[in-house]
Amino acid sequence: MNTSLDQGIEQAIRGSFDRQGLMSTLGARIDAIAPGRVTLSLPIGPAVSQQHGFAHAGASFALGDSAAGYAALSLMPPGSEVLTVEMKVNLIAPAAGVRLIALGEVMKPGRRLSVVRATLWAEDAEGSRRETALFQGTMIPA
Amino acid sequence: MNTSLDQGIEQAIRGSFDRQGLMSTLGARIDAIAPGRVTLSLPIGPAVSQQHGFAHAGASFALGDSAAGYAALSLMPPGSEVLTVEMKVNLIAPAAGVRLIALGEVMKPGRRLSVVRATLWAEDAEGSRRETALFQGTMIPA
Amino acid sequence: MNTSLDQGIEQAIRGSFDRQGLMSTLGARIDAIAPGRVTLSLPIGPAVSQQHGFAHAGASFALGDSAAGYAALSLMPPGSEVLTVEMKVNLIAPAAGVRLIALGEVMKPGRRLSVVRATLWAEDAEGSRRETALFQGTMIPA
Amino acid sequence: MNTSLDQGIEQAIRGSFDRQGLMSTLGARIDAIAPGRVTLSLPIGPAVSQQHGFAHAGASFALGDSAAGYAALSLMPPGSEVLTVEMKVNLIAPAAGVRLIALGEVMKPGRRLSVVRATLWAEDAEGSRRETALFQGTMIPA
Repeated sequence: MNTSLDQGIEQAIRGSFDRQGLMSTLGARIDAIAPGRVTLSLPIGPAVSQQHGFAHAGASFALGDSAAGYAALSLMPPGSEVLTVEMKVNLIAPAAGVRLIALGEVMKPGRRLSVVRATLWAEDAEGSRRETALFQGTMIPA
Repeated sequence: MNTSLDQGIEQAIRGSFDRQGLMSTLGARIDAIAPGRVTLSLPIGPAVSQQHGFAHAGASFALGDSAAGYAALSLMPPGSEVLTVEMKVNLIAPAAGVRLIALGEVMKPGRRLSVVRATLWAEDAEGSRRETALFQGTMIPA
Repeated sequence: MNTSLDQGIEQAIRGSFDRQGLMSTLGARIDAIAPGRVTLSLPIGPAVSQQHGFAHAGASFALGDSAAGYAALSLMPPGSEVLTVEMKVNLIAPAAGVRLIALGEVMKPGRRLSVVRATLWAEDAEGSRRETALFQGTMIPA
Repeated sequence: MNTSLDQGIEQAIRGSFDRQGLMSTLGARIDAIAPGRVTLSLPIGPAVSQQHGFAHAGASFALGDSAAGYAALSLMPPGSEVLTVEMKVNLIAPAAGVRLIALGEVMKPGRRLSVVRATLWAEDAEGSRRETALFQGTMIPA
């Protein structure tokens, strides 16, 4: 439990996450929530693969975008929801391994718009991690 | 059948698509392949939803990115594979409806890099379409 | 003169453009204004060059971003000003020639945000044009 | 002098910078060069202004893009040159003050492509700095 994070905000994020069918389809889960920082992960496997067995860019995007969105939501007024305005991803290494981990971070919170970044790592069976993608984008309260 | 598209290229695209576990997980299919232009679609439903029942940005991204990638692949030499270098999406309307359709297009083919765009529409039960997202990115032969 | 464009809007765009020191520094001018579409140009020369004598990516960006911003402003309520939220450019060919031309277009006007694209061409001394850059971004009323 | 940076690379960066007419037009200078990190700055004034007297997004882009490009060049083999493949900028605060400072950083060097980020600050007359823009993009050896 994160003592500095409002309990209502944490519940709002967990509730929203649980209502996202795609997160369940991808097997994603919330690993950590802190003010302005949210970590999500999903298992790399056939359900999220591209043609070489690595995680598909679409699965990488879904995880990084969601981590960034919930990071933004964690700093918004209670009762807010969040939408992605735009998101850009640079894919820097194949997402090979057993688990994909996304850390979303708020770079600039705002009443009208929030600027966010996210980092994605692929973790192998021994727990060593390799950076696979970098995100930069804009979130808006809905 | 597209008479101006090399049969080997079309088979390579269909084969690659069939090996992408995520496309199957999302229920995506290939609607059309032409030189430099590929159309994909997927049914909007609980498996790809965000918290309001619209298609999740991650599902939108996966479809648009794949359409753009296969459009690039359609102009590459036989035997090529394609990877996303980077992709940016602007989400312009909620992806509400029954079907999501992505048209990927090559703006500038290249030996080293291809610049691509994609357009996403959500189609309702009556068949009317609304533009929901615009993509611009870079593909590289693998 | 464009009869379908509000005269006040056209004056607002021309006035704003004239107050942008950088446009004057770069030698840029307004070539055309229509609702949702603005064309700007600048002479390619030593003042805007990179190390090979082509127009610098920074000059290309300034022209494309401004064309896109004024295109967005042309559809905003009278008295508005416009700011770039974010902009992405793909550079697809060297900006070699005598003149750089930017067409900015509104893809999705909005009360809160407008999604824009721009295309850049380099024109040679004979008047033939080559596409050099593609932009996609977001504008906000200020 | 940076003892860990190859002297030839530093000279190549300074030589390339000096041949960029736009950097001279904007009054930009190199503040620091280290392996994978380059800092540039320019005075905020009428020559680079937008309609409110702040630095124009085009000037911000030119500085951030150049800092990122030279950061990439600092890790490339001697004799290389560098081109921007694509660049995305999020503008997060008005570039108000007396000086604009850009730090370019290599996130992932590569033989074929380098992924870069840059941060821009506006500095006021008292020397206090405010973050104004975040960049993420791709560089390629020319």
